[in-house]
Amino acid sequence: MSFTSPHLAALVPYSPGEQPVIEGLVKLNTNENPYPPSPRVLAAIEGATRAGLQLYPDPESRVLRSVIARHHGVAPDQVFVGNGSDEVLALAFDAFFRHAGQPLLLPDVSYSFYQSVCRWLGVVVRQLPVDDGLRVDLAAFEATRGESVAGMVIANPNAPTGIALPLDALERLARIHPQRVLLVDEAYVDFGAESAAALVARHPNVLVVQTLSKSRALAGLRVGWAIGQAPLVDALTRVKNSFNAYPLDRLAQAGAIAALEDQAYFVRQRDAVVHCREGLLLQLEDLGFTVLPSQANFVFARHPAHDAAQLAAALRGRKVLVRHFAQPRIGQYLRISVGTPAQCEQLLQALAACLQG
Amino acid sequence: MSFTSPHLAALVPYSPGEQPVIEGLVKLNTNENPYPPSPRVLAAIEGATRAGLQLYPDPESRVLRSVIARHHGVAPDQVFVGNGSDEVLALAFDAFFRHAGQPLLLPDVSYSFYQSVCRWLGVVVRQLPVDDGLRVDLAAFEATRGESVAGMVIANPNAPTGIALPLDALERLARIHPQRVLLVDEAYVDFGAESAAALVARHPNVLVVQTLSKSRALAGLRVGWAIGQAPLVDALTRVKNSFNAYPLDRLAQAGAIAALEDQAYFVRQRDAVVHCREGLLLQLEDLGFTVLPSQANFVFARHPAHDAAQLAAALRGRKVLVRHFAQPRIGQYLRISVGTPAQCEQLLQALAACLQG
Repeated sequence: MSFTSPHLAALVPYSPGEQPVIEGLVKLNTNENPYPPSPRVLAAIEGATRAGLQLYPDPESRVLRSVIARHHGVAPDQVFVGNGSDEVLALAFDAFFRHAGQPLLLPDVSYSFYQSVCRWLGVVVRQLPVDDGLRVDLAAFEATRGESVAGMVIANPNAPTGIALPLDALERLARIHPQRVLLVDEAYVDFGAESAAALVARHPNVLVVQTLSKSRALAGLRVGWAIGQAPLVDALTRVKNSFNAYPLDRLAQAGAIAALEDQAYFVRQRDAVVHCREGLLLQLEDLGFTVLPSQANFVFARHPAHDAAQLAAALRGRKVLVRHFAQPRIGQYLRISVGTPAQCEQLLQALAACLQG
Repeated sequence: MSFTSPHLAALVPYSPGEQPVIEGLVKLNTNENPYPPSPRVLAAIEGATRAGLQLYPDPESRVLRSVIARHHGVAPDQVFVGNGSDEVLALAFDAFFRHAGQPLLLPDVSYSFYQSVCRWLGVVVRQLPVDDGLRVDLAAFEATRGESVAGMVIANPNAPTGIALPLDALERLARIHPQRVLLVDEAYVDFGAESAAALVARHPNVLVVQTLSKSRALAGLRVGWAIGQAPLVDALTRVKNSFNAYPLDRLAQAGAIAALEDQAYFVRQRDAVVHCREGLLLQLEDLGFTVLPSQANFVFARHPAHDAAQLAAALRGRKVLVRHFAQPRIGQYLRISVGTPAQCEQLLQALAACLQG
């Protein structure tokens, strides 16, 4: 079609997990939180709904950014917010990784959205293989020292493996290409990993991205942020104001503020998910699965005697939805979100039946 | 800074109008609706708040798109939705106007955000002067027939003038470069202009962008859409899924659906704004202003004996905020949003005092 810009031919759009509306479905395919958000979030949204929706939101989200800053112990000018962490990631890729021809370094097993953004922006990707345990291979990154690269992106914990790197490993990564940004995507960090936000003060090239979608049970609200030194945040803001000056609506800003202020609710609910994950992991092993060590709100598991795609389809027949990636290296794994204890029990029963049938 | 992508040096980010929080302020600077949204919108948002904010929204916004489709009498696959019409515009510029070196045609007086997006995307702009009455000059566009261009963008009614083109003029524009997209930005169309959505069925190159921010009193919710033939919508969707798969949160989708379904409220409130605009226009003329004919929810006015920047500052001193653009050709105009009758009265009193003082 002559109407479209030529670069559209190269796009490989991201495919989000399904959001089907099926009565009685056990939905463990998109790593949502099985619990509702804090009641204070609902009250804050209700208040904002009645407080002038005809007016534009604050385009700079100043109150929200100051709350996030306090949460991380940084200054408000070290906080950038966006319409979900996916938007923050895409704007960051634009702001920091478009260095003509120089490759962005990614593990070969990671969040597939990164590749979609890179295709859109024309950023070349160099995939560095994870090891046989699907762990990020630090040595492979170290081996690029001295080369011209566009930057590095690490999901920590990694998706879809759930495996986390410790903080000192992230700091080693930050030192390999000190003139380029190391983006650490911490969508799942609250479920057991250490945040690289602690590195921001002494590493001007570290940008940490977080979200309310998982540990704060607000996937439906679309709020994410980045923590980095002020020059990085300033660059992100310049790109944002060239694209969409008002990415966060009034309700999202109000809800996000309330979510971050109810730390007690967060801890209780997060601990429930972590507790359930540990039980699920053992029970999957009892069923014969090999399960990767997870610091996220999902587990990544394979069965030595059963094809993963067939298992996923059989589970779907029993109204249990999990995610299967038809991709190299991970095609025999299932990614299973941690639900409530009751949902995990339904999953295990369905799995047991599938394995027998 | 070595961290940033080289193209950041060329950015000219958009500056949104101020959103100050000042007690007793008469805020007529960002073309917001002076009335609240429909009570049905508030109820719908309340319902959605309690119906699973921990779950992702529908990434394809299917229900909302079908409601918009019905509103315009088109098919759902002819509707694209985004996080405010600014996001829709930016994605459309990316999808349709990046034709290396070929210029995008814009009137020289128009919504300044277009230029920000073009600088970001590396799209060259050719500005075609509006005439002495600040009307879009059709002949200047006609004169480009046969040239290689990236496309055309017309705000209709135009911003910040408020002047609208009739439908047959838009159809003439659509025929000049039939192999390129004509984007018609109809943010203000409901206040008196004809929608180019009527052209979509017979013009595969027409893309119409609308928003809930103005006539539906939902600037705080960030919902916009585009109407075009399915291949255009498909291209937009591919770009969107390479950038951010979930741009509309659950509350925005629910509120937007309710807003479009309460047509009676919309008509009543829209008519109130139009009625107030006509009175305001006459009263400004009584004060000696020259006022352009407006089909929008604002008027664009200049006073032959008073400097616009000074007037805007003096009004601000009296707690009345209007917008002044320090730009060529329009530097002596004030853009004044139409408020409630009481707000318009406050504006007129403040203006009268400023003109005397």
